[in-house]
Amino acid sequence: MNELLSEKVEQAATVLREQQIDAWLTFVRETTESGDPVLPMILGQPLTWQSALILTATGRRIAIVGKYEDEAVRQTGVWKEVIPYVEGIRTPLREILAEIDPRRLAINFSPHDVKADGLSHGMYLLLQEYLDGTPYGKRLVSAGTIINRLRGRKTAGEVTRIRHAIATTDEIFAAVASFARPGRTETDIAAFMHEQAATRGVETAWERAMCPIVTTGPGSMVGHGVPSPELAVRPGHVFHLDFGVRQDDYCSDLQRAWYVPSPADPEPPAAIHHAFEAIVAAINAAAAMLRPGVLGWEVDEAARTTLTAAGYPSYEHATGHHVGRAAHDGGGVLGPRWERYGRTPYYPVEAGNVLTLELGVDNVEGRGYLGLEEMLLVTDDGIEWLSTPQTELRQLGQVGERPAGVA
Amino acid sequence: MNELLSEKVEQAATVLREQQIDAWLTFVRETTESGDPVLPMILGQPLTWQSALILTATGRRIAIVGKYEDEAVRQTGVWKEVIPYVEGIRTPLREILAEIDPRRLAINFSPHDVKADGLSHGMYLLLQEYLDGTPYGKRLVSAGTIINRLRGRKTAGEVTRIRHAIATTDEIFAAVASFARPGRTETDIAAFMHEQAATRGVETAWERAMCPIVTTGPGSMVGHGVPSPELAVRPGHVFHLDFGVRQDDYCSDLQRAWYVPSPADPEPPAAIHHAFEAIVAAINAAAAMLRPGVLGWEVDEAARTTLTAAGYPSYEHATGHHVGRAAHDGGGVLGPRWERYGRTPYYPVEAGNVLTLELGVDNVEGRGYLGLEEMLLVTDDGIEWLSTPQTELRQLGQVGERPAGVA
Repeated sequence: MNELLSEKVEQAATVLREQQIDAWLTFVRETTESGDPVLPMILGQPLTWQSALILTATGRRIAIVGKYEDEAVRQTGVWKEVIPYVEGIRTPLREILAEIDPRRLAINFSPHDVKADGLSHGMYLLLQEYLDGTPYGKRLVSAGTIINRLRGRKTAGEVTRIRHAIATTDEIFAAVASFARPGRTETDIAAFMHEQAATRGVETAWERAMCPIVTTGPGSMVGHGVPSPELAVRPGHVFHLDFGVRQDDYCSDLQRAWYVPSPADPEPPAAIHHAFEAIVAAINAAAAMLRPGVLGWEVDEAARTTLTAAGYPSYEHATGHHVGRAAHDGGGVLGPRWERYGRTPYYPVEAGNVLTLELGVDNVEGRGYLGLEEMLLVTDDGIEWLSTPQTELRQLGQVGERPAGVA
Repeated sequence: MNELLSEKVEQAATVLREQQIDAWLTFVRETTESGDPVLPMILGQPLTWQSALILTATGRRIAIVGKYEDEAVRQTGVWKEVIPYVEGIRTPLREILAEIDPRRLAINFSPHDVKADGLSHGMYLLLQEYLDGTPYGKRLVSAGTIINRLRGRKTAGEVTRIRHAIATTDEIFAAVASFARPGRTETDIAAFMHEQAATRGVETAWERAMCPIVTTGPGSMVGHGVPSPELAVRPGHVFHLDFGVRQDDYCSDLQRAWYVPSPADPEPPAAIHHAFEAIVAAINAAAAMLRPGVLGWEVDEAARTTLTAAGYPSYEHATGHHVGRAAHDGGGVLGPRWERYGRTPYYPVEAGNVLTLELGVDNVEGRGYLGLEEMLLVTDDGIEWLSTPQTELRQLGQVGERPAGVA
């Protein structure tokens, strides 16, 4: 933990210099209730009273925290100057800022990136009040780019953890492919997967009630639905899972699909087969575009037009997103230039990014949702797959020696 | 769950009318990563895309949410008008606001109350952008008082749950009083209490690493420290726990203290006894002040001056706080008028509030931290204790038939 912490805090000074920002202030309180998403990356423990974590381009690491918490912050080994207070943070904060005298002071707000938007509006108002009469209230800028770069550029240690989370997910997919058979309900399957995760000592990558998302046929809600006790795997339908685990604080996020053979259609019907091929082609089109410097929307467009050119409707979500400490790790998306994505489709891809590629076709021939999601690492000149891409629509109940759902 | 949800959303309309606010907007996105503390109380499930939950003084309940999540919101049974969108929330949000035409629109920010400060600064900027060209951007006010009243006025169902959490905590204190004996380290004791909680199917009331806070003597960090594997219960010291559980979403938060007999001092030394009596007297002085309408700082002052009049230093924290969905449930504090508490010591106490009273004396005669924390319900004309107040300093290893640590 502290090794990763140290890697990330060191990276922060580099990013501050790149962005020509003198100092970056994370200003928080009672983080157990209302946490700044950046805190686990730079501190790794909660804070109770109003606290200021300041990193500078010159490498200073200053924490102003309530008495009772200073020792715990010191013990991280990462925060070198720890200043405890009792009555109020205003005075020590103003003193430290006067000493650093930043021309630009970055704080954690971003209209477009939830992971860089950890400062509450009330805390922003409080900060303005504390800085009243100093020049620093007018020198505040968004730390969006800093946080985006910091979250997005995975260190070697981070990539290793993500690989482990993917390997565990593959094991669970293999197990569920044996368990899921006609008659099993969505809730049966979700409960089985939760057991599998617990056995392996991992949590789900997002809220348990919706992880996995299980779709057993045309009756299932696509996307974000809670598994239903009334819908079951049925012959002739597509069986689809969207699932990930959090292992050692890092996540996976993958989708796998199977065809459920029926007496009438022991093989996937041609329409299903055609849709599956189009989905794989669209994912590959996106993967072929990915390299440092490409913009998110360009990657999205490559996938989206490949799918629509094959005769399928455009899906109503982004083609991909970052994965890291969260399944949706913030920063740019590989998404269309729609209002709800704000500026995030314009963020450039960087080496070290870990991204998903995910898309699908709803209800092909009334058989249910068919979709895939893969994970990859952006390298200096392209990508390396982190998941083993599914390139074949396996039939449920025909599991070979290799993990089901992985071609 | 949905019964409580329904109770609270109904209460909200009453509070809006009292506060003469036409509509209250909770504006969120990706709440799993960055949740508004009010969301569990009014929705009870996460939201992914930008979402607007609007409650009006006339009792309308409107949710504008991303497609894929509308059905889950409808299924709560509480949100009557659910409007799904795909490309962006701006248009449906502007349409609904034009229809309601609120003179004052409350949003979730508060410099002084973290529980009412769930709107991020980036989301605030986004909301201003969405409302640009309408009159509503200028009609925004803080929902601080609304949320404070809503969290603070416990319904019968909420009080019942809190009583259950307290009963479970008492069981765990009784068990730990048998387990803790000279030689057991702080981490041994914390691990034992975690096991006890797991056995009973409850979580800790705050972050596990610091719940319980265990102090075994003068070497322990008071207040917020992580249990140490190097510090153990020792004869002649005070053994003190600060602990609570979360059971069915509601919390307890209690402190209990024991004296560890030594051959030299089989009974608590007179100085320890005197300090214990002063602590009990200070808690009773605060309890005697508590009734609807009294201000937090007045209650704090009663306790604080009782303790200092007995010759002990003033403690560096508030005398009490609300408990509910969180161990520190926001709203007013029973605290001194110090900068770091902002306006919260000025909030009036209301009937239905569930509060703690907690204070102590550090390191009396080099024996360690001695403190107590009780919980109570404010009634129409005073209080009802929810915990059974500790009025006797029990000796560790001399456990009677009643739960240890409870007189």
